[in-house]
Amino acid sequence: MLLAPLAVFAEEHGPRYTGDNELMRPEGYREWVFIGATLGMSYEPNEARRKDPKFHNLYINPASYHEYKKTGLFPERTIFVMEVLTAGSHSSINKQGNFQDRVLGIEVALKDSSRFKESWAYFNFIRDDGSAADSVKAFPKERCWACHNEHAETDNVFTQFYPVLRRDP
Amino acid sequence: MLLAPLAVFAEEHGPRYTGDNELMRPEGYREWVFIGATLGMSYEPNEARRKDPKFHNLYINPASYHEYKKTGLFPERTIFVMEVLTAGSHSSINKQGNFQDRVLGIEVALKDSSRFKESWAYFNFIRDDGSAADSVKAFPKERCWACHNEHAETDNVFTQFYPVLRRDP
Repeated sequence: MLLAPLAVFAEEHGPRYTGDNELMRPEGYREWVFIGATLGMSYEPNEARRKDPKFHNLYINPASYHEYKKTGLFPERTIFVMEVLTAGSHSSINKQGNFQDRVLGIEVALKDSSRFKESWAYFNFIRDDGSAADSVKAFPKERCWACHNEHAETDNVFTQFYPVLRRDP
Repeated sequence: MLLAPLAVFAEEHGPRYTGDNELMRPEGYREWVFIGATLGMSYEPNEARRKDPKFHNLYINPASYHEYKKTGLFPERTIFVMEVLTAGSHSSINKQGNFQDRVLGIEVALKDSSRFKESWAYFNFIRDDGSAADSVKAFPKERCWACHNEHAETDNVFTQFYPVLRRDP
């Protein structure tokens, strides 16, 4: 009896595609498992210091989180949602440091070998005009996958930046 | 049939006290609902800029989150856990900005009018030597409660700093 609701729960958070192979924007991710936040991260050695650093909040679908904690492996249909937010400061009684202010939208990393030759695919649901896309195609391999594959510690995932996912937390 | 597991779930995340009215350290909070992160926040106008800013990750127990989203009110037995982490930088391929590195411990805000005259009470589970306390007494009223009561937007909670809890997210 207890397993039935859990199975439904896992299925609800799986990836959904349109007929032409676009990923539909994940919903309900704010009740998934949070794995960590970053502020103003950049991997570009020669990039000028950003004037307007953004917060990123990372979430993983609960079923994949539990599987990863048990086995150290990310199962098929693992979804990471990265919520992008502006950094606020000097508001209300805040005198220094940054809080998360305005939500700009989400990007997604998804493992689905049945659809993507390199297993992992990457998606940006933030349109150029700032609105949220309902569904989008994956980035070409060289845009995200190559760097994740080279530098991420665990199966294309930057576990080194997320204490919750480290093997020695 | 569906309500029984949910009731158990809510109860599991309620506050637990020792015989002498100390709050026991909440567990499992990383699977609660994440409401936002801050970096290096300070409310002290005359404080020198901190050399070693910390990340704070805020979580709320799921039952209280759902009640708040429905009613705009924080029910009795609402628990916020604030996880404190060091800010890492220039590690692996990171060239600027900050990721969350080492977990230092947790602090807690709790609403329980049956135990605390001012409804909300505040707790620090990080001992001076950095180890985690199993149970602690609430701070005296003037240490945390007074400032939260004066400046927090919603019932002693700084909802203004957490997009997930704002009424207009």
